[in-house]
Amino acid sequence: MNVLEAIEKRRSYRGIYESTPVQREDLMKIVKAGVAAPSGCNMQTPSFIIVDDAEILRKLHELMPPHVGDTAPAAICVLSQRVSAKGQRCFATQDYSAAIENMLLAIVELGYQSCWLEGQVTDSEEINKAMARTLNVPDDYELVCLLPIGYGEGMPPVLRKKAFTDRVWVNTYGNSVGRASDR
Amino acid sequence: MNVLEAIEKRRSYRGIYESTPVQREDLMKIVKAGVAAPSGCNMQTPSFIIVDDAEILRKLHELMPPHVGDTAPAAICVLSQRVSAKGQRCFATQDYSAAIENMLLAIVELGYQSCWLEGQVTDSEEINKAMARTLNVPDDYELVCLLPIGYGEGMPPVLRKKAFTDRVWVNTYGNSVGRASDR
Repeated sequence: MNVLEAIEKRRSYRGIYESTPVQREDLMKIVKAGVAAPSGCNMQTPSFIIVDDAEILRKLHELMPPHVGDTAPAAICVLSQRVSAKGQRCFATQDYSAAIENMLLAIVELGYQSCWLEGQVTDSEEINKAMARTLNVPDDYELVCLLPIGYGEGMPPVLRKKAFTDRVWVNTYGNSVGRASDR
Repeated sequence: MNVLEAIEKRRSYRGIYESTPVQREDLMKIVKAGVAAPSGCNMQTPSFIIVDDAEILRKLHELMPPHVGDTAPAAICVLSQRVSAKGQRCFATQDYSAAIENMLLAIVELGYQSCWLEGQVTDSEEINKAMARTLNVPDDYELVCLLPIGYGEGMPPVLRKKAFTDRVWVNTYGNSVGRASDR
């Protein structure tokens, strides 16, 4: 599958997962995709914990809202360090977001489903902090996201999207693609 | 090129670009990759302006620090709207970062080079605001990034990266991949 195909195929999956385990080799490929993401001033602020131990997964999901990826046989937890880059700017959110997107595309490529679960764990600070404690994560990291990973029993829904022409212009705001490509 | 190959191949290119134009069709494929990125609660906060008009590109680069992608024959400017999603949380930074990463991978797939120029335009607020004025962008959008696009004359450097085992663990923080895979 080429990149453009994977990007179009990626969807947020919130259904039931098959119990078929995810190969450790595949989980490694997925985190390698995360590690390979760009980061502001190359600060490499995101880190990753692969979770495929059933008991640890169960403990994490007990802390989370019900029915969000709790049937998935594996997960990757994304940790972030708010380290300043040049000029005291911190690009940690951009860094982990790029890493997560890379991993979601790798997950598509390998035939699995996933969903970017961030608000579900960070809306109430206690959830991600409790998850971090479960994983023995030091205080200078923030657990910002959990990606459930596995084969989906069903298919993810196609979301309603804004019109392309309401989000893309050419050379000047408001100059829509159709008009501009006529030139 | 499959997804994992593109992810490994992507590098930030800060060199000189060839003058060969970028096909409009390719620029469309690249923004489609951006549009297809996930967004928090499907709020679709990023928008995009393709810039391939030489005069407008020149005006944008006049506002920017010198020698950052100013020889590229095209660019995509990324706009963001800080719209709140569920629970008053705003995921706009995550949204545009995922969209940018998608576009960078599409750029690799299509054989071009690019570089995520964000701090260069947002460190001093006046630069991105002046760029937005040049593109006639309304005040409720923030211009957050410019991606130069074109064929590179040279190759991007390989950056020094932290050790993989300093960024990836298995089932518990500190449980390194090598050790864990022995089980």
